[in-house]
Amino acid sequence: MKITCEKNILQDAISIAQKAVTGKSTMQILQGILINAKNNSVIFTGSDIDLSIETKIKADVSEEGSIVVDAKLFGEIIRKLPNDIIEISTGNDNTIEIICQKSRFSLVHMNPSDFPELTNINENSMFSIPEKILKSMIKSTIFATAQEETRPILTGVLFEIKDKKFNLVALDGYRLAVRSEYIDSDNSINAVIPGKTLNEVAKILEDGDSNVNITFTPNHILFSIGETKIISRLLEGEFIRYNSIIPEEYNLKVTVKRTELLNCIERASLMGKEGNTSLIKLNIEEENMIITSNSQLGMVREEVSIILQGQPLQIAFNSKYLIDALKIMEEEEIVMELSSSVSPCVIKNKEQDNCTYLVLPVRLLNN
Amino acid sequence: MKITCEKNILQDAISIAQKAVTGKSTMQILQGILINAKNNSVIFTGSDIDLSIETKIKADVSEEGSIVVDAKLFGEIIRKLPNDIIEISTGNDNTIEIICQKSRFSLVHMNPSDFPELTNINENSMFSIPEKILKSMIKSTIFATAQEETRPILTGVLFEIKDKKFNLVALDGYRLAVRSEYIDSDNSINAVIPGKTLNEVAKILEDGDSNVNITFTPNHILFSIGETKIISRLLEGEFIRYNSIIPEEYNLKVTVKRTELLNCIERASLMGKEGNTSLIKLNIEEENMIITSNSQLGMVREEVSIILQGQPLQIAFNSKYLIDALKIMEEEEIVMELSSSVSPCVIKNKEQDNCTYLVLPVRLLNN
Repeated sequence: MKITCEKNILQDAISIAQKAVTGKSTMQILQGILINAKNNSVIFTGSDIDLSIETKIKADVSEEGSIVVDAKLFGEIIRKLPNDIIEISTGNDNTIEIICQKSRFSLVHMNPSDFPELTNINENSMFSIPEKILKSMIKSTIFATAQEETRPILTGVLFEIKDKKFNLVALDGYRLAVRSEYIDSDNSINAVIPGKTLNEVAKILEDGDSNVNITFTPNHILFSIGETKIISRLLEGEFIRYNSIIPEEYNLKVTVKRTELLNCIERASLMGKEGNTSLIKLNIEEENMIITSNSQLGMVREEVSIILQGQPLQIAFNSKYLIDALKIMEEEEIVMELSSSVSPCVIKNKEQDNCTYLVLPVRLLNN
Repeated sequence: MKITCEKNILQDAISIAQKAVTGKSTMQILQGILINAKNNSVIFTGSDIDLSIETKIKADVSEEGSIVVDAKLFGEIIRKLPNDIIEISTGNDNTIEIICQKSRFSLVHMNPSDFPELTNINENSMFSIPEKILKSMIKSTIFATAQEETRPILTGVLFEIKDKKFNLVALDGYRLAVRSEYIDSDNSINAVIPGKTLNEVAKILEDGDSNVNITFTPNHILFSIGETKIISRLLEGEFIRYNSIIPEEYNLKVTVKRTELLNCIERASLMGKEGNTSLIKLNIEEENMIITSNSQLGMVREEVSIILQGQPLQIAFNSKYLIDALKIMEEEEIVMELSSSVSPCVIKNKEQDNCTYLVLPVRLLNN
């Protein structure tokens, strides 16, 4: 193998493929990055079996071939080399030579035949969606996935297509996040993608309008983003029927400025902090919502103007779940739909009907 | 106590005083910040006994008094409040009230009489130096202090004034850093300041020309920076006679571009990494320095142009010590003075004679 290529192009490609190299595997080959040079292009592949990422660049290939090198070391070397043409070629004794200006590295490589083969997926794309929209949809839901592995299916995000609607859904037993977009596809899809995969997908997606192509097989999903392919195993099992959890009716509806409410809740949550969670009480009155919290350190009272339809209510929440949802929402005004102090609270944008957040209340002894 | 003050002014003052609150003390009072309101000004003080920082702001004091509140919680509350006037007053039951717009906090406070008294230092300043110069001097030496406590005196930086020269000196047994400035003072000083103190001092110092006043007592140092006072205990014991370590003569002298050499050494150090250290070999020839390193992962060869006065030499170093010095130096060209493969290397600016770095070589078996 012998290739020459500009440093920056190499660096970007390595940093993409490297996102699949977790360094957590005990198999040494999975700490490597596969470099495959052919037809004046070079493909870099990283994999941790569950998730594989490959990306292709144009390069001057004067000798075809493939090798595997330690992803972290190789990435650091390329990153530290000068901004100039880099030559990479196989040398003697299982090494590759990396030459740039007066720098010359000789790196032990691994056997490419030990590298796991990528699942072969027929790339008849099932549907497409602009990069920035998919990125926003992932960010709007992924925080609500379960962090513990007790119910593995909840560590993923449901990708659902039905009735020309594309829905992303995540829930962890305490709250739920749904984000929807209209999609011009008659397909019907119901698949759960690991949160870990979507974290990396979101990092690779750019804020542009170019399309991501998404293909499903019974066990895998393929994201094609420009010259990059991300293949991930799906989570096994049935996702919770989330629709039955979201109440369709409510007794009272609160309209409130999102940032104002968020700031009040963030301040109130300082007081009752125990680890990552903090209990706050909402006292929903005619024109105001009073937010209080107390602990042995002291107490806090915050007040925010609201428009209330329905009867006043007192309800308590873990502040983190409200904060997570309010932070990621985009409209300046939101509505909260409530029924009682022990029923879930549904949060939506005031105008655009493209997301639904649900948070379970905390039952208080004196309620 | 009752004061009103703008949020930003409060926030800046708290963040300065808080730098002395380490949170590592078992004494609860030391997790607090002392607020002392008097004569239309408020003094905030943080302390961990060894190091105390106090800073004064103007504020509207309608009732004088003093209290102690938890530094971290109080700082977070002030930081999250809106940009507006904040009122702080003592309430009932050992609490203070913090009010800003519609936010109202009630915070349990501690007893100010439990707070350690600041060492009283007669502020007849012994000498002054512009903030940005002291900041640069600290940053140029502090990295060379010992991180382990086996010889406590080496965890500090020597402040030495003699013959109208102000020297900061740090060493850890493997390398030494000296940074000097001319000073218009006939004093003679020899005191060792804890590295921990200087880290905080460097954060508070700004890049401006206003003066820091420095006062010494037998056991303490006082830095006066505008309305801020930093009082630190000195380290006990005799500092090493560093002058006898720095060789005055040398056999060969290398002149080299600093950034070029730094980049080569940083790349070379990628290869031999073991934890934080990495061994590199320098092969100093007539017009080039060849830098090599190898490990089981591979090998690297870097080359940098030099001007050599004297005979060629091979010598090996722990790359970290060279990198630390080269990173902090300011001139584009530097000189390295060497004598043999087992004698220290002295690094200086080519032009300005205001710093001296010394690094011990690593003795190789095949040397």
